Amino acid sequence: MDMTYKKIDEQDISFLISACGQDRVFVGKEINEDFSHDELAGIRKFPEVLVEVENSLEVSSIMKYAYENNICITPRGQGTGLVGASVAIHGGIMINMSKMNRILELDEENLTLTVEPGVLLMEISKYVEDHDLFYPPDPGEKSATIGGNINTNAGGMRAVKYGVTRDYVRGLEVVLPTGEIIEVGGKVVKNSSGYSLKDLIVGSEGTLGIVTKAVLKLLPLPKKAISLLIPFPNLEMAIETVPKIIKSKAVPTAIEYMVRDVILASEEFLGRKFPDNSSDAYLLLTFDGNSTEEIENAYERVAHICLESGALDVLISNTQERQESIWKARGAFLEAIKASTTEMDECDVVVPRNRIAEFVKFADELQKTCDIRIKGFGHAGDGNLHIYILKDQLDEAVWKRKMDEVFKLMYEKAHELGGKVSGEHGIGYAKKGFLQESEGNTTMALLKNIKLAFDPKNILNPGKVC
Amino acid sequence: MDMTYKKIDEQDISFLISACGQDRVFVGKEINEDFSHDELAGIRKFPEVLVEVENSLEVSSIMKYAYENNICITPRGQGTGLVGASVAIHGGIMINMSKMNRILELDEENLTLTVEPGVLLMEISKYVEDHDLFYPPDPGEKSATIGGNINTNAGGMRAVKYGVTRDYVRGLEVVLPTGEIIEVGGKVVKNSSGYSLKDLIVGSEGTLGIVTKAVLKLLPLPKKAISLLIPFPNLEMAIETVPKIIKSKAVPTAIEYMVRDVILASEEFLGRKFPDNSSDAYLLLTFDGNSTEEIENAYERVAHICLESGALDVLISNTQERQESIWKARGAFLEAIKASTTEMDECDVVVPRNRIAEFVKFADELQKTCDIRIKGFGHAGDGNLHIYILKDQLDEAVWKRKMDEVFKLMYEKAHELGGKVSGEHGIGYAKKGFLQESEGNTTMALLKNIKLAFDPKNILNPGKVC
Repeated sequence: MDMTYKKIDEQDISFLISACGQDRVFVGKEINEDFSHDELAGIRKFPEVLVEVENSLEVSSIMKYAYENNICITPRGQGTGLVGASVAIHGGIMINMSKMNRILELDEENLTLTVEPGVLLMEISKYVEDHDLFYPPDPGEKSATIGGNINTNAGGMRAVKYGVTRDYVRGLEVVLPTGEIIEVGGKVVKNSSGYSLKDLIVGSEGTLGIVTKAVLKLLPLPKKAISLLIPFPNLEMAIETVPKIIKSKAVPTAIEYMVRDVILASEEFLGRKFPDNSSDAYLLLTFDGNSTEEIENAYERVAHICLESGALDVLISNTQERQESIWKARGAFLEAIKASTTEMDECDVVVPRNRIAEFVKFADELQKTCDIRIKGFGHAGDGNLHIYILKDQLDEAVWKRKMDEVFKLMYEKAHELGGKVSGEHGIGYAKKGFLQESEGNTTMALLKNIKLAFDPKNILNPGKVC
Repeated sequence: MDMTYKKIDEQDISFLISACGQDRVFVGKEINEDFSHDELAGIRKFPEVLVEVENSLEVSSIMKYAYENNICITPRGQGTGLVGASVAIHGGIMINMSKMNRILELDEENLTLTVEPGVLLMEISKYVEDHDLFYPPDPGEKSATIGGNINTNAGGMRAVKYGVTRDYVRGLEVVLPTGEIIEVGGKVVKNSSGYSLKDLIVGSEGTLGIVTKAVLKLLPLPKKAISLLIPFPNLEMAIETVPKIIKSKAVPTAIEYMVRDVILASEEFLGRKFPDNSSDAYLLLTFDGNSTEEIENAYERVAHICLESGALDVLISNTQERQESIWKARGAFLEAIKASTTEMDECDVVVPRNRIAEFVKFADELQKTCDIRIKGFGHAGDGNLHIYILKDQLDEAVWKRKMDEVFKLMYEKAHELGGKVSGEHGIGYAKKGFLQESEGNTTMALLKNIKLAFDPKNILNPGKVC
């Protein structure tokens, strides 16, 4: 695919100013450093120009101009991604979508919420919960935009019971690379009207079109939730319990695993105590439902399974306060690990749920065989692991070499176990090579053909995914 | 797109015999008439040759041969479709997938069932229920293959609570139009590893690839279910109650609507009485859960809403026998309507749930304005209506003219209400023009580009969808 683009000149800047106004166009030193990287900051490049948009017509007119002039475009939300998908690696125009942040409509008869892409995940959950409704996807990073969540098909903690972002996107308004605006899906519950463009755009990391509006599916808010924190003598015993829980036909909302090291890091980072840090490993489960009785029925059996499998205790958190304190700590794990080192990169593999123990053990052993610090936690209930390789005091060349080596081994192992390169953080720029390795030439050729079906000039977020 | 194909000759037949054996290749009069049409039989054409396959390697070798020789291929399951998607409108080779009908693996640790595409829906539900597990999609046609269900993204009765077929497909093995075999998705719960080919192939009506294996997601089987049959003085009152039920935050498993005429037709067709036929219109609801108390809590509120909205009664079916009798009648509606006329065609629109009443009223009035008999029923809880236009004694020319006229008005109305051409039966051959009208040129061009991304020679099920 061609990746030579026209450089931005005065005329292009004038066009952008005419489209959006002087105060929403930023050039050179006016561009905040934040826009040159994402959360992990391993990939750095400034766009040539940054423009803040306020509506889909502006996006469309910029996209159309870029298409006609062969300028590349990078759409950008809050920049909380971890794989460089929102970094302008070829320069060009970066479109900042985060000011398109209005909640447009709550439709209680169809149980949908229509939003602009810049609305934050935490704003959505608060808004709908105030109406006794529920948007189930619950990624750790609550300050991500919904547009970003849609573009990575973010999963989060509650995927065990409720599924992922894709399952809660009913319809999208999308600006295509040509500048045309289309609507895919809608408020409808079923749809078999041609290939599902909606599902193709969800998870496409801003490479097929720019999402300018989303219709989200809501559920009634479960009336109650209870969390169980379950200490185990070691991680292996904790994780090997998970397939037994699944097999028991219990349906927890979330099953997370965590180890003492990471809990200690989070205590230090947040400056507050976790309810327990005396054991090497923990499972953290949530159950929700409409009555205490219903929930108790569900978790009693699971508590029993855990104790039979060697759990040291079952700590029940049934007040909102205690639950929030546990989940807040869980939400800080990434930041806490990040704060404990100089630089890090992440492996976000997903494996079948009964292969997690094997993968975690493999990753742990890599610390010794590759002599590098590795820390992780993850969604044990859905097989999605977040494993971080830490640079610490390694020099740049050694770090790059070791990181490549460790990643290669991890992704090979995931593939061998029937897993995939990314569970929820996407491929972006950083993981392209690993996707190629994992999926093979035939599938990658299909992905490229699909990209060209949407974007024949390859101007929208080029160099990402495929 | 090019649609001229090589005609089948002796050499092609020899190849197929060498690939699959003499007794699985059928030519000319050896081809049963059933293979010339689908369930609605409005579109008729024999394939030039019919071949029964037993495994994906056979499918791959036939596909590869067809690709090299520019022969078109039509994959076929049980032929229960309603839009001509499985009719060989360009002749060529029809591949009968229905003998690839093995259940390959039940994985209780990952809650997945791996099947070949020819397994029937009723076989799947029986098999998993015997293991105390649940495959939620529940289309009326239980003798359809799972391959057909995947290809139309079939929905069925339980979509209100559980979603549609797409939501229960975790992974697929697919033979591409080039003959290459790929796997998309897998046993993993989350996946953000490149564009979702799995979701693109689900619902693609056999035009992007041939599904040769599917990994289905299962749930624990709910322990109890209760159905409510709720008579109303008229259909409008019944249907206008549905958005109130949704808004109440109750979560029924199913909400169907039905009218007396159709119930009477079904009684005649099945030769057995429906529990009640004294009212003009009914809602039929199911609630499921793990305890009677949980279900009662859910339905009591809904029963109250119905009575407040003018329901004449609430008939509770809490024995399996009574429920089966009601749902068996519901399952026979299509056949019963079909038996009441000479020929019919169907409109399978889906509209937002709060617009159903408006659409049903519109369709009913078309009986008068267009002077033709129209009968329907539908999934009131998800906005998906099945409305049948009946030929009765009309002559062929008048029938075609009226049918076109009525369809055009219905699809325009659906579009106006924010609806889509098909909720679950697909586009196939019969509804292509209406999809074009509804989606417009930009979207249709994208669909065509995607088709060519998979199938550059346009040999796989050509002339369908787009």
